[in-house]
Amino acid sequence: MRRALASSRLALGAGRRTRGRWGDSSRPWTRRASSFGETPPDDLRRLGRPERDFFRFDVIHESKRSRARVGEIRTPHGVVRTPGFVSVGTNAALKAVHHETLDAAGLDLMFANTYHLMLQPGAETVEALGGVHEMMGRRRPTITDSGGFQVFSLGTPERRSEAKELKSRNPTKHRRENLLLEVSEEGAMFRSYRDGTKMTLTPESSVAAQKAIGADIIIPLDELPPYDIDDNALRESVARSHRWMTRSLRAHLSDVRQQAMYGVVHGGVDRDLRRASVEYLSALPFDGMAIGGSLGRDSTELGSLLEFLMPLMPKDMPNHLLGISDVENVDRAVMLGVDTFDSAYTTQVARHGTLFTHSRGRINFRRAEFRRSREPACHECDCTLCSKHSLGYLHHLDRANEPLAWTLASEHNLFYMGQKMARVRERILNDEI
Amino acid sequence: MRRALASSRLALGAGRRTRGRWGDSSRPWTRRASSFGETPPDDLRRLGRPERDFFRFDVIHESKRSRARVGEIRTPHGVVRTPGFVSVGTNAALKAVHHETLDAAGLDLMFANTYHLMLQPGAETVEALGGVHEMMGRRRPTITDSGGFQVFSLGTPERRSEAKELKSRNPTKHRRENLLLEVSEEGAMFRSYRDGTKMTLTPESSVAAQKAIGADIIIPLDELPPYDIDDNALRESVARSHRWMTRSLRAHLSDVRQQAMYGVVHGGVDRDLRRASVEYLSALPFDGMAIGGSLGRDSTELGSLLEFLMPLMPKDMPNHLLGISDVENVDRAVMLGVDTFDSAYTTQVARHGTLFTHSRGRINFRRAEFRRSREPACHECDCTLCSKHSLGYLHHLDRANEPLAWTLASEHNLFYMGQKMARVRERILNDEI
Repeated sequence: MRRALASSRLALGAGRRTRGRWGDSSRPWTRRASSFGETPPDDLRRLGRPERDFFRFDVIHESKRSRARVGEIRTPHGVVRTPGFVSVGTNAALKAVHHETLDAAGLDLMFANTYHLMLQPGAETVEALGGVHEMMGRRRPTITDSGGFQVFSLGTPERRSEAKELKSRNPTKHRRENLLLEVSEEGAMFRSYRDGTKMTLTPESSVAAQKAIGADIIIPLDELPPYDIDDNALRESVARSHRWMTRSLRAHLSDVRQQAMYGVVHGGVDRDLRRASVEYLSALPFDGMAIGGSLGRDSTELGSLLEFLMPLMPKDMPNHLLGISDVENVDRAVMLGVDTFDSAYTTQVARHGTLFTHSRGRINFRRAEFRRSREPACHECDCTLCSKHSLGYLHHLDRANEPLAWTLASEHNLFYMGQKMARVRERILNDEI
Repeated sequence: MRRALASSRLALGAGRRTRGRWGDSSRPWTRRASSFGETPPDDLRRLGRPERDFFRFDVIHESKRSRARVGEIRTPHGVVRTPGFVSVGTNAALKAVHHETLDAAGLDLMFANTYHLMLQPGAETVEALGGVHEMMGRRRPTITDSGGFQVFSLGTPERRSEAKELKSRNPTKHRRENLLLEVSEEGAMFRSYRDGTKMTLTPESSVAAQKAIGADIIIPLDELPPYDIDDNALRESVARSHRWMTRSLRAHLSDVRQQAMYGVVHGGVDRDLRRASVEYLSALPFDGMAIGGSLGRDSTELGSLLEFLMPLMPKDMPNHLLGISDVENVDRAVMLGVDTFDSAYTTQVARHGTLFTHSRGRINFRRAEFRRSREPACHECDCTLCSKHSLGYLHHLDRANEPLAWTLASEHNLFYMGQKMARVRERILNDEI
């Protein structure tokens, strides 16, 4: 769990004491924030819940045993079955995995990162290549984030280790420097990790980039304060995120195209702030809701917060959990009503030796005991690894540094998640969970 | 061409003056070697050409316009269509490419390297995993070399750069040292590039390793002198290679299993020595013949030597050209009667930006002009890259350092070779070449 959180975009600063731009904190978070004063702008509130002919969420079945539900998100590029695992293809590609694998694994939605695509090949180039679907040759549902996560998490060296997916062809001296230059009401000024170029990300420029990229679902810019931020600073940060999201929504609504926008609930582990954030964002014409910001120091805090938060979330729209989908937390999140969750964790750990299996739980294929194993990784899986290869072969490929090892292991973990979610949907339909 | 030779196992020392264990040479090679005195042992000669129920070569058609022929090599793991490109899977796996790709590309035979498999996972482990076919889950024809090429080419630092496929997970100080410790009549003593362990490769131990690995076609140990070796030293080296191959053959014949063994013709660019080598080896009960050693400094010398050599080669067995299959030389080699050729070049260059195309020749997908290209790499190819993706997407993946770029480009070049060889076979059947 610790590793899962550490690799997710929800665990920024978890377990650390940082002094910085968000204020001072020399004690663990205890105080409940007071009520949250701002109200969403009237003109946007009056628009009410949007009706889209290109985007729709249907709940097919609600479990009689929990808040879990089976649903379908209809997008211009097809249906996303929920509850569903969202695979992360940072650069509009999964690491060492063909797109076809996602279809074979039953994974409908792919998450791409605006920050990465802005830097390479550039949002305009994605547009020139026909938009992200056309560019990557996968005409299936896609979601992009605002780019803010990377700007904030990579901004300061001490937080950068938590975003390991970021790799540069030619790491420059800029990687060792503070890349986050200034955060103001306007937006965030930062340096490109690739070449040091100064760039500014504002609510409007993030929306413009996501218009050019053209994913089916887009996300407005938010601020990402660390876990142990001072309570006043957190309240201010949430208020700023709300103002940024309101500006993002205006920019989006002036040129909707065929895109849906999700709001992002903030408030850290402060329940009053979380409640206020849900209320604020629910009054705005978003098409879905995401849960962002720090969700706690460990699995217990995460569970506790989700138990409080999920009943407050709007039930008539998709609820997405940002950056957490480690196997251990999926079942609990589903039972609390989460519809989709993303994380690069599933494939990241595959490249480092971990396979999830239905029959044996989590196994590390680098262990010496598998050197001469002629067994498949999992008897219940029909991915290439499990249907054609032995654990001994995978162990060998990995030791020999063959990229095929990453491919086979990543594919397997994606299949595992696809199969797991298919079973989860089946069990919800049968009111078993 | 220069690059093609430089990356092949035939170009050792090409274009360089080395002073070393094979003697002194301060002038380019000019003198023809005198006749070659040794004769193959009588007991082996008397065995005559072997008849195998598990291995057979059939010539289906000989061209009326050249020495080109279409044939079939039958092995215990299926048929190899000739002329055929042999893909190199050094560690019993292609770099970043699924085995299925080879079947889709129409490539029948895979080359694996005994040296690499001896060091990782070890020949005994390959055997414990059921042999190389069972281990890698590809039950199709396979060939292994003796391990000698790497022992000699990686032996001295100045020659090591020519075997770029060799990569270590943890490069040790041993990589910077002389790894070839001693060459004697017995064999070659060397250090493992992985951990510095002292190992000896003899004709018998190479055969034993290849028995454990279990490929359909195996190759006896030979010595690999540099291009510009002194003529006396070359003659001695060829004679030693012949003695080693005779010993290898004895070891093989005492425990044939279902494996075929090819002899390896040597003699550098010395025509008398080449002729003598063919005569010597043809008298021994090999199942096929490979062409090894240095074939010249450039494409002209290569062509000239093959024109001399190929008419001497036995026509009733498969003729394999070791380590050369760059696109430029394939057509000429085929017209001279070469049946199979291998090289890692095809996939190596793919990982560095080069695609072979039917319509546009060789293109470098890293060039800026392809950044916004929505064109496929090749309209006549049905690989995943060409049927689903644009050059612009490949360019992006490569710039973003996504391993999928290597996969797609390598797959394409393998498809290209498969398609090219299918066309070549068709044209031979029609007496067009």
